[in-house]
Amino acid sequence: MNAEVVENAPVSFHRAEKDLPFVPYQDGVMFQLLQVNIEAGLWVVRVRAEPGATFQRHKHTGQVLAFTSCGSWRYLEYPEVNTAGSYLYEPAGAVHTLIVPDSNDGITDIWFAINGANLDLDSDGNVETVLDAGTVLEIYRAQCKAFGHPAPDVIGA
Amino acid sequence: MNAEVVENAPVSFHRAEKDLPFVPYQDGVMFQLLQVNIEAGLWVVRVRAEPGATFQRHKHTGQVLAFTSCGSWRYLEYPEVNTAGSYLYEPAGAVHTLIVPDSNDGITDIWFAINGANLDLDSDGNVETVLDAGTVLEIYRAQCKAFGHPAPDVIGA
Amino acid sequence: MNAEVVENAPVSFHRAEKDLPFVPYQDGVMFQLLQVNIEAGLWVVRVRAEPGATFQRHKHTGQVLAFTSCGSWRYLEYPEVNTAGSYLYEPAGAVHTLIVPDSNDGITDIWFAINGANLDLDSDGNVETVLDAGTVLEIYRAQCKAFGHPAPDVIGA
Amino acid sequence: MNAEVVENAPVSFHRAEKDLPFVPYQDGVMFQLLQVNIEAGLWVVRVRAEPGATFQRHKHTGQVLAFTSCGSWRYLEYPEVNTAGSYLYEPAGAVHTLIVPDSNDGITDIWFAINGANLDLDSDGNVETVLDAGTVLEIYRAQCKAFGHPAPDVIGA
Repeated sequence: MNAEVVENAPVSFHRAEKDLPFVPYQDGVMFQLLQVNIEAGLWVVRVRAEPGATFQRHKHTGQVLAFTSCGSWRYLEYPEVNTAGSYLYEPAGAVHTLIVPDSNDGITDIWFAINGANLDLDSDGNVETVLDAGTVLEIYRAQCKAFGHPAPDVIGA
Repeated sequence: MNAEVVENAPVSFHRAEKDLPFVPYQDGVMFQLLQVNIEAGLWVVRVRAEPGATFQRHKHTGQVLAFTSCGSWRYLEYPEVNTAGSYLYEPAGAVHTLIVPDSNDGITDIWFAINGANLDLDSDGNVETVLDAGTVLEIYRAQCKAFGHPAPDVIGA
Repeated sequence: MNAEVVENAPVSFHRAEKDLPFVPYQDGVMFQLLQVNIEAGLWVVRVRAEPGATFQRHKHTGQVLAFTSCGSWRYLEYPEVNTAGSYLYEPAGAVHTLIVPDSNDGITDIWFAINGANLDLDSDGNVETVLDAGTVLEIYRAQCKAFGHPAPDVIGA
Repeated sequence: MNAEVVENAPVSFHRAEKDLPFVPYQDGVMFQLLQVNIEAGLWVVRVRAEPGATFQRHKHTGQVLAFTSCGSWRYLEYPEVNTAGSYLYEPAGAVHTLIVPDSNDGITDIWFAINGANLDLDSDGNVETVLDAGTVLEIYRAQCKAFGHPAPDVIGA
């Protein structure tokens, strides 16, 4: 360690809440794409879901870390309810269906760091769609454009 | 993909905010250790810092993801101020000194997923202490015990 | 750092070439499964392919590192030929078809560390099969049993 | 999955054995740097060690995967001897001293994928040097220049 190493150290990358827009992902769900690392297969996303929102059952091919800021949600397959301050670790291989209770009062706000792909499954367990860093970036850019936002400055894009 | 694969899928691991205590890390800083993966070198921690808190300058050997719930803070080495809803990505090799402004009103609450070690540096840039998944678990367990909490059920410990 | 930290340091995990059998994966291809980390989505495998072997076109959801000991092979989609001592880095999202030339004299021997899943694709680009740490372990165990080997001591299994 | 996704898929990165020079690392040890990902803290290196070579005791902050092509070596701290075809998985936190027996006949050739830093330790367990993706790249470039090779085309550099 010496001064030169410290001077050459990489900087960090900050995005304030207002730096990147929340845009529709699906009915009752808005999202903000914070970071993609397409080569590594990492995508970091913040999701705001209205009461009653659900996400198609999917299998993960990598680890997921989730931190909940407000609201409440759970996976249909597990009993635990995520609320403000909850942390959830999802191993690779996990298969589940995200549900936000109808009975919630307001928005549920979840930050996810997702490694690998979400393999969205049909009712027979076949892979219907592959959602990964590359495809989520395409979706985010298209939705930003469609809703009149400038090209978003996603970290790593 | 078939029924058997889904049935054998690993479950996820949830910790509600109240499941694990916040204990002192240093003067003006409380922390909650959510997960360790000692073999992979991953530790997930939530930090609550009072106005004026600072952390020793350190170099990271792996990537760090940080989400801020409330308050404000920055690294002495960069201009950006993290506030509620901020996301910060710190590459491996980053060297910086965390500071919480004296002028803050209340607590600053930050969730970190840290890969690798924090190499705490003295003023000459020498490595004084190595903080990693293994050592942070020892500290957390000791502080839980010292403050009268039961043995904490950290994910992966 | 002190004596205690060193004494508690995790050990490493060694497998000699003869510790784990090579068993058939498909026509003209034998494989040895060295390590799985199902929670992380990592699998480490060694493949021995005869002249003319091919692997179905697949998309990777995580990074792959490959080191070739002998023989020659390439992906149909790229011009570079891997030979003894070649290193290949495959980013997440890569889509390709492994081919071993008919004109090879002997065995091609490749060591792979694979993160995430191989999504085997049909000719229309639909996902036909998902090969990951969990499924490859099932296949390896079944083939070891079928070919009269004892239960294999795969790292992490 | 559709044609567009496949067309946009990232390519892979190949380095043949002759594409990057082996240069001296220390007495009795030559090395070839194949890949660095400084932001992720990954470095991939091939090492050729003469009989009797040793590496300073070090602690790893991330996981290491090692494949041995020829020769023999072990860590002073563990009994297992790595030989041709051996695979070794070293978890984060491992502390050890690499030794190549004096009694070896020829070169020992090892391929390593190293996550994080090697913390080289003095006899009291203090960190003497931090070797990581950034510093190993500086060393490799300097040695290539010193030994009359052109600037090396390391993946990710």
